[in-house]
Amino acid sequence: MRILVAQLNQTIGAFEENTQRILLSLDEARRQKADIVLFSEMALCGYPPEDLLFHASFIEKMERSLQKVIAATEGLFVVVGIVRKDAFLHNSAAIICDKKLLGFHDKWLLPTYDVFDESRYFKPGEELRVWEYKGKKIAVTICEDLWAHGGFVSYAKDPVLTLKQLKPDLLLNLSASPFAYQKPLLRLDVCKAPVKTLGCPVIMCCQVGGMDQLVFDGYSFCVDAQGVLRERAKGFEEDYLLIDLSKPHSTPSPSNPIEDVYKALVLGVRDYFHKQGFTRACLGLSGGIDSALVASIAKEALGKENVLAVIMPSRYSSLSSMEDAKALAKNLEISFREVPIEGPFTSYLNLLELFWKGKPHDITEENMQSRIRGMILMAISNKEGYLVLNTGNKSELALGYCTLYGDMCGALGVISDVLKTQVYKLSEWINKEKEVIPRSIINKAPTAELKHNQKDTDTLPEYAILDVVIEEYIENLLSKEAIARKHVLALPLVKDVIHRIHLAEYKRRQAPPGIRVSKKSFQVGRRYPIVEKHEL
Amino acid sequence: MRILVAQLNQTIGAFEENTQRILLSLDEARRQKADIVLFSEMALCGYPPEDLLFHASFIEKMERSLQKVIAATEGLFVVVGIVRKDAFLHNSAAIICDKKLLGFHDKWLLPTYDVFDESRYFKPGEELRVWEYKGKKIAVTICEDLWAHGGFVSYAKDPVLTLKQLKPDLLLNLSASPFAYQKPLLRLDVCKAPVKTLGCPVIMCCQVGGMDQLVFDGYSFCVDAQGVLRERAKGFEEDYLLIDLSKPHSTPSPSNPIEDVYKALVLGVRDYFHKQGFTRACLGLSGGIDSALVASIAKEALGKENVLAVIMPSRYSSLSSMEDAKALAKNLEISFREVPIEGPFTSYLNLLELFWKGKPHDITEENMQSRIRGMILMAISNKEGYLVLNTGNKSELALGYCTLYGDMCGALGVISDVLKTQVYKLSEWINKEKEVIPRSIINKAPTAELKHNQKDTDTLPEYAILDVVIEEYIENLLSKEAIARKHVLALPLVKDVIHRIHLAEYKRRQAPPGIRVSKKSFQVGRRYPIVEKHEL
Repeated sequence: MRILVAQLNQTIGAFEENTQRILLSLDEARRQKADIVLFSEMALCGYPPEDLLFHASFIEKMERSLQKVIAATEGLFVVVGIVRKDAFLHNSAAIICDKKLLGFHDKWLLPTYDVFDESRYFKPGEELRVWEYKGKKIAVTICEDLWAHGGFVSYAKDPVLTLKQLKPDLLLNLSASPFAYQKPLLRLDVCKAPVKTLGCPVIMCCQVGGMDQLVFDGYSFCVDAQGVLRERAKGFEEDYLLIDLSKPHSTPSPSNPIEDVYKALVLGVRDYFHKQGFTRACLGLSGGIDSALVASIAKEALGKENVLAVIMPSRYSSLSSMEDAKALAKNLEISFREVPIEGPFTSYLNLLELFWKGKPHDITEENMQSRIRGMILMAISNKEGYLVLNTGNKSELALGYCTLYGDMCGALGVISDVLKTQVYKLSEWINKEKEVIPRSIINKAPTAELKHNQKDTDTLPEYAILDVVIEEYIENLLSKEAIARKHVLALPLVKDVIHRIHLAEYKRRQAPPGIRVSKKSFQVGRRYPIVEKHEL
Repeated sequence: MRILVAQLNQTIGAFEENTQRILLSLDEARRQKADIVLFSEMALCGYPPEDLLFHASFIEKMERSLQKVIAATEGLFVVVGIVRKDAFLHNSAAIICDKKLLGFHDKWLLPTYDVFDESRYFKPGEELRVWEYKGKKIAVTICEDLWAHGGFVSYAKDPVLTLKQLKPDLLLNLSASPFAYQKPLLRLDVCKAPVKTLGCPVIMCCQVGGMDQLVFDGYSFCVDAQGVLRERAKGFEEDYLLIDLSKPHSTPSPSNPIEDVYKALVLGVRDYFHKQGFTRACLGLSGGIDSALVASIAKEALGKENVLAVIMPSRYSSLSSMEDAKALAKNLEISFREVPIEGPFTSYLNLLELFWKGKPHDITEENMQSRIRGMILMAISNKEGYLVLNTGNKSELALGYCTLYGDMCGALGVISDVLKTQVYKLSEWINKEKEVIPRSIINKAPTAELKHNQKDTDTLPEYAILDVVIEEYIENLLSKEAIARKHVLALPLVKDVIHRIHLAEYKRRQAPPGIRVSKKSFQVGRRYPIVEKHEL
């Protein structure tokens, strides 16, 4: 039995393009003499379509596109992810054989946590069967359907237990599982329990591509009846993976988790731009490590000719920072422009001096510089057609160490789900073969340079400590006591960090969308009130 | 049987304050010789607590607070909304009699649409019973539990049908149902079918208060066994409503829907500020109707001494606009300050002229003015401790006729869910007794005054038409064809508006939170991808 796994990068709602890509995959399958073709969850419309699902026109286009797919399945057994509607909507797989629609599998387990809202849209499936083809009993499940069996999530039902009665020879899973750090490994683990229970191979077809804040990493795979990974598609790009169950194994080596994060960020930027028809990005280059990393990612995603670095020195900028910024731009071969902010800064100070006679400079004037830079970037964006990339990291966003409408501006937060300590790891990874990001940028103490001799540690704990607290609190929901105990930290420090995380909720609400690469991002899949008084 | 309905304005997670308010209500009930005291849904923690529910400390505090409530129920039958945890979380009502916890009713129907995400948090209840007290059989349901029976929402189960078998003498409903235009009337309609089926009175206790973007209007009420409204609590404030089922009716008159919207906006602003400990607001006053309305609302919410109007003329501002702005400030008795933006504007133009030699002015310079104003408001906010009120309306937000980081800045969107045509209605309502908002502000053609002789209609359809399309498309999900047919509009016009609504999704993602007063707001309860290609 030869199965072609078609790992595609679809665009939400782009039915014509998406259908075309599916039809090309069917041609490829016939060329490769495949028996079965497997697509990912909602391959026809792209995942997640969110409230577009409530529009009748969306479902009508889905139905028409499905008819085109059915008509093109000559000689093949095809399983493709769709949304179908009876009295309710269902997250479904259409099972098609040789131009005939055999039926559907409606997803049983509808994730409604973190970034998932499937109960908002769908009614769960209630039936399960196997589909006979060329003497084999083929079972079909969709993503989460497999996650209960190994205890990864808790549901009242477990489709794998129902499937066990049906003794399938092969289990196909259509998936759209967003990337997070080390998530590809987790997906393998998830398959182990179903394989053990069913005693048959599992093939998972995963969506690939950037969909707003979510990145889907691909890495479709086959686990054999012994629970061993035997084949894996590429990560972060489209791929056709042919699996011949009668042939011997290949044993793919695991991917590098830091490289995966880098590729996720690159793909997230690229798809955010290209799927909307944008090509060019600008960003502020400060001479610090965050903007250096974002510039490197932008170049990789969009090409060096499409990235403009804007260097905006102030009276507080150090010469070395400006030199570092220029050295980086030269290393990356991206163009740069110098726009000093002293003129507008003085103009605001003079204007407001009327009202603030004698009041000392404070956070107001710091924010002002940041907002002038934001304004300049947005003006360049408006006049010259660049999208602004936001360069803030997750540690800053956690504590609100950033300026609304200033360094928080931009179309897309490239590293807003990357902790500062991970920013260093990614930068070292970029420099692994040659020095792209100047060593002086990596070595200098982090500073916003919004007043003389400023250091981040004037107002923040050391990042090594801060990031531990953020990760344990945000990703693992540990209590302050548990975090202090586990990492031998002072309780008041931990409490202060958590308090500041909650105080900054209002700022994050107006942050740009940011690419999610951790298991809990601030910007998608985390929902907290602004006005609340719980002492956590 | 005397029932005290305690309609409280709780704060999310403020367990001590919330519990205290509940204990005071119990005292009041004894003073009023009530037999039963009914609180709203999640009265103990405030609704909606969102992901705070995932923190163990939140549930622990809930349990401790519940014990305090139980201990204070001497001589009373008390029903209070809580969240309880066994293997799962439940949206629940604790039924308590004379210091003894009798049991719980777990909500059966968990709304997971629009602004509701209850399936994200809770497992539905599966049992229903009646509670005997003083010879009466009392049934308890929570909010949505009643909404399926009259067909307002569709669920697989209907708790009212189950209750019918139990023949209750009285049905108590704990509710937290956010305000929308004409929603108070809808809630009455919802109760009619259950009353008819059960043949007993229904008493609904509603939450009141602003909770971030949601406003809860209160208006708790009793419908008698004949389906007639017999008693109603106040709207938009805390109230104790005593219902004596043996006494004759009062028949409350319906509220004015426009007045309700006004009160919702006032309460939304007041609670957003006061629940966070803020007292003072500033806003830009342009001489246009939007900022005039917001200033009027802010004064009502916060007091005239706590509102600062900032008038920021540019080279394009008309003298009459500036005079109108000052006249309004004088009418409202709020202080105002004039901060001309010419200095910073010239300074940016000079700075960027280097790169744009000879390029004509365009949207860039228009946005620049808007952003300079945003910057000045934020500087005043930073230096002097005001929160900035955003003054944009829903029609602008729909089409993206607004500037990111400019007029889109602010802590709270006061009228961002109010269509321009409703802005006029609210302004007329404010002027009903005397001219608060100068007639010249109401009469002038809408303009952003970002270039010479600019009118909104240069780039937008007439608001009377635009608002119809927005309402039918956003609130009622009608297709472009259906809208064109129903309102005799040209299809290309309708299509263009819908297209622009989707194009502006990226802007709205960074808009400030905005008070919701329609049945579908852009900022909460509506989830659309930015990157999508569906032609709606």
